[in-house]
Amino acid sequence: MKILSGIQPSGQLHIGNYFGMMQTMISNMESSELYVFIVDLHALTSVHDREKLATGTLEAAADFLALGLDPDKCIFWVQSDVPEVCELMWALSTISPMGLLERCHSYKDKVAKGIAPSHGLFSYPVLMAADILLYQADRVPVGKDQKQHLEVARDLAIKFNNQYGETFVVPEPAISETTAIVPGIDGQKMSKSYGNTIPIFLEGKQLKKRVMAIETDATPVEMPKDPDNCNLYKLMQLFADKERMEQIHSLYVNGGAAYGYLKLELLDLLNEKFGKAREKKKEYLSDPQMLRAILAKGADKAREKATVTLDLVRDRIGLSY
Amino acid sequence: MKILSGIQPSGQLHIGNYFGMMQTMISNMESSELYVFIVDLHALTSVHDREKLATGTLEAAADFLALGLDPDKCIFWVQSDVPEVCELMWALSTISPMGLLERCHSYKDKVAKGIAPSHGLFSYPVLMAADILLYQADRVPVGKDQKQHLEVARDLAIKFNNQYGETFVVPEPAISETTAIVPGIDGQKMSKSYGNTIPIFLEGKQLKKRVMAIETDATPVEMPKDPDNCNLYKLMQLFADKERMEQIHSLYVNGGAAYGYLKLELLDLLNEKFGKAREKKKEYLSDPQMLRAILAKGADKAREKATVTLDLVRDRIGLSY
Repeated sequence: MKILSGIQPSGQLHIGNYFGMMQTMISNMESSELYVFIVDLHALTSVHDREKLATGTLEAAADFLALGLDPDKCIFWVQSDVPEVCELMWALSTISPMGLLERCHSYKDKVAKGIAPSHGLFSYPVLMAADILLYQADRVPVGKDQKQHLEVARDLAIKFNNQYGETFVVPEPAISETTAIVPGIDGQKMSKSYGNTIPIFLEGKQLKKRVMAIETDATPVEMPKDPDNCNLYKLMQLFADKERMEQIHSLYVNGGAAYGYLKLELLDLLNEKFGKAREKKKEYLSDPQMLRAILAKGADKAREKATVTLDLVRDRIGLSY
Repeated sequence: MKILSGIQPSGQLHIGNYFGMMQTMISNMESSELYVFIVDLHALTSVHDREKLATGTLEAAADFLALGLDPDKCIFWVQSDVPEVCELMWALSTISPMGLLERCHSYKDKVAKGIAPSHGLFSYPVLMAADILLYQADRVPVGKDQKQHLEVARDLAIKFNNQYGETFVVPEPAISETTAIVPGIDGQKMSKSYGNTIPIFLEGKQLKKRVMAIETDATPVEMPKDPDNCNLYKLMQLFADKERMEQIHSLYVNGGAAYGYLKLELLDLLNEKFGKAREKKKEYLSDPQMLRAILAKGADKAREKATVTLDLVRDRIGLSY
């Protein structure tokens, strides 16, 4: 089974991403043929700052490697390092009905949010289809917001196969719901757009400030509290071991749970959980040449796969004369 | 001065093309740095037949080489053999306002004519801009119908330069009017879409049939005729030498011009003018490996130029991390 995931070069990863995407990715790495790439070409639809994009790409690579993505157990590369994806995109464009793209919500949503309505933004789903079909991915873990784009990829694969003969695997979506269960510091779903995240790589005073800002109610320490309605409790559950959680549960229902104390405990647990990854990230970023070498090796592996598909496509559509 | 021309892989060249595009191209080859490429990627927006496209590409190459395009005096290649153009297209897409493309007449015209409204058809001007800007062309000879697309290329070059720093030459159009003066066999402008052409590579009975079908009036041989209103006369002018044209002119104004006889004379002149090119074309098509080698060499030369531009673009927009 081939599983493919694209990651944004712009993101400051938070613990919601960790318990959703990262954990899924690591488990896919162990059980499947995993393809992971940093979508710098897609990012160009919203990032028009050279420095920001280039730095974001290296940082994303450092993030994922530090958190346990093993480049020997998967194919890990930067999207633009495999230019075949742009060639396939054009081929797919020529069979993409305009109506199919005009129906995509994501374009309209982004424009409504103030992103300039560029041709790149409009064409986003075709590039995404090319990403998926180029590697003949079987499964693509996507959030609900990307489900329609995956439908576009499926439609184009089916249409191409019908028109030119069997060429592409028709990919299946794997809709992940898990990220929804990680609450942000305000109790809503943790999300960068809500500004309520706990970033994985935040440290020291800044991290402490964020953890102390977790919203809790005003029930006095000695009074009983409802763990199921407590944001802090839910976050503790992600990090504390079973035994400790039983103790905490008992403090909640019987009285005695001190929010301030628990927050400091959560801070310790966060540092314990991610301390090693934070050090590793620093190591990677202090040696960008090593990072580039890892990504170059990944691009070679990806390109080898991409070329097989693209050669077949070129032949099917008449570009091999 | 760099001049760039794209040629369709689908066309059966006619004498209107010859006295317009071909002659201009040959003279540009002698005086400028000429880039000529067969636009197989663009053709995909209307040709969805593998065999037709692949054969059309080889035939177009044979046509132009046979008619005097010298691959040592210009850069001559097949568009899809330089994949950098697709990468640049994506970069340009991300700065192309949707409104700019929505205003293009050509898309609407093609859809009105029954071509399926695909994303490729809509994106045609962005790919064309990439073709032009990738080679830093100064001048692009275009027909009136392509003038708006050249404006798009200029707009994108200017926008990119403003946004990311000086990168692209802003190309100038060179609107050719000459093709308009070659009449078709029915007296309208010679054009494939009117079905009134005299194809350059047509021979024998088929060519004779076409020449004999040149429309003339019913004035008897011995009566005077108006050369300025005679279709056949205008076609003769393109091929007969000055001395002979004076004789013919005199027959027209004084009486004695026999249409049937003049048509046979025109047929001889056509065979004389294009006989060598027809033989050459056959030689090329009998040795497709040689054709492919010429095109591969051209692609190498084009790619060398393309890479310089694309490396700069990648750096400007942040793809070099």
